[in-house]
Amino acid sequence: MSKPGPLSLNTVTVRDRWNLAQCIEGCARHGIPGLSPWRDKVAEMGLAAAARRIREAGLFVSGLCRGGMFPAADAAGRQTAIEDNLRAIEEAHALGAACLVVLGGGLPPGSKDLPAARAMFHDGLAAVLPAARAAGVTIALEPLHPMTCADRSVLSTLGQALDLAEEFGEGVGIALDVYHVWWDPELARQVARARGRIAAFHVCDWLVPTSDLVFDRGMMGDGVIDIPGIRAMAEAAGYAGPCEVEILSRRWWAEDPDQVLRLAKERHASAC
Amino acid sequence: MSKPGPLSLNTVTVRDRWNLAQCIEGCARHGIPGLSPWRDKVAEMGLAAAARRIREAGLFVSGLCRGGMFPAADAAGRQTAIEDNLRAIEEAHALGAACLVVLGGGLPPGSKDLPAARAMFHDGLAAVLPAARAAGVTIALEPLHPMTCADRSVLSTLGQALDLAEEFGEGVGIALDVYHVWWDPELARQVARARGRIAAFHVCDWLVPTSDLVFDRGMMGDGVIDIPGIRAMAEAAGYAGPCEVEILSRRWWAEDPDQVLRLAKERHASAC
Repeated sequence: MSKPGPLSLNTVTVRDRWNLAQCIEGCARHGIPGLSPWRDKVAEMGLAAAARRIREAGLFVSGLCRGGMFPAADAAGRQTAIEDNLRAIEEAHALGAACLVVLGGGLPPGSKDLPAARAMFHDGLAAVLPAARAAGVTIALEPLHPMTCADRSVLSTLGQALDLAEEFGEGVGIALDVYHVWWDPELARQVARARGRIAAFHVCDWLVPTSDLVFDRGMMGDGVIDIPGIRAMAEAAGYAGPCEVEILSRRWWAEDPDQVLRLAKERHASAC
Repeated sequence: MSKPGPLSLNTVTVRDRWNLAQCIEGCARHGIPGLSPWRDKVAEMGLAAAARRIREAGLFVSGLCRGGMFPAADAAGRQTAIEDNLRAIEEAHALGAACLVVLGGGLPPGSKDLPAARAMFHDGLAAVLPAARAAGVTIALEPLHPMTCADRSVLSTLGQALDLAEEFGEGVGIALDVYHVWWDPELARQVARARGRIAAFHVCDWLVPTSDLVFDRGMMGDGVIDIPGIRAMAEAAGYAGPCEVEILSRRWWAEDPDQVLRLAKERHASAC
């Protein structure tokens, strides 16, 4: 079995305790070569300073989290989302990010019309794609687990994301997060179909039991996902990029971030 | 819009407060014409008595919950599951149930091999199907929401269930539960594909937020599922059977069952 690609730290993994400066220093201290910041952390430091300090630390940026979230209750809300995505594209460009991670967003409040929300996502993506292409920023569509469909992501499966990526073509790829796709009976077929379009590979684990629909992701190796098996599928489809650890977890947020990074590095080597 | 099919009460909806006798009496009292018992409630009363009392009350039996759960850590465990399913088939026959609802079961403890667990499900189904056919009991494969994949159901999508139903043919249908499938981008296509195979139609709702992966289902109308829309898809695919309410919910289990039945009957008319 090949080794996983170089480790990248998604800053949400230590969200509650470290700002971006601490994440950058933490990566340097632990020999983690990549970073994937969330936009609020970047804004806190200031975009120019963030770009400079990440560059000075010699870290690659495996992605910027997050754009998308296009569905909204009215046209003004949809326009606001589009404008926010245009800013996110500029930020991804300034940071030299390998991609902008784009999420579906949930149903607009009060709506039960899932096809309409999915159409809003489609149209929002179409509206911002010219700017992404002009900036050379790859859009990485990230399907989230179906349990997030109502309030976070109407983009629910890899197959659905690939339908969009194929429709839009140039500049649109997918982010493959094992947590969101491991259950999918279509997984092997869809990852093979994703050849040339896998812009990011995210890892964490599915815990048994899982106590929360959003904030109970596990450290790699602590759950039931066959992470090396999914990585092998991605590699067979041509993916040769980083392995980004992204753990949203109340449990890990409460721990010492240095301990979390030490363990993530260990598990990157032993469980990914 | 047509009216939903006749209401059936899945006994799990009032699980904590009523035994089977109380469920039968409750249906009669509220003018609910159908029942779908869980096997533990039947066993408690005794199979022969349960069959007689349901018949005497004039209730139809929209399904028996539940068989399946074939994956296990070793051959002895898989054989135990098969034998239990053979008993479930006899019970479904004795009760005159329209189907035996068959669930996937989760990964065996310690396993990360999802394809192997799915193969165990396939083989278990193959082992019990001759008995089901001989007894005239329809097997209704019920895919559960992907969030239950690790510990309850390796049968995750309607497409996957239909692949099995098509492979096995005679005597194998599917149970369509709106809670488990509403998020699926393939929903319309797969329900259309299910023509002639929809053995059961289950309703409840997806709450926002959802606080638990298993026990926080909503009353119809309280969540975001377009239940009439999914019912219309099922009817367009030829389904003309009952509308079974099945709510696993700590909240509703704590309420007076008569109040739950009153509300379920109201919502059957207004929100299904």
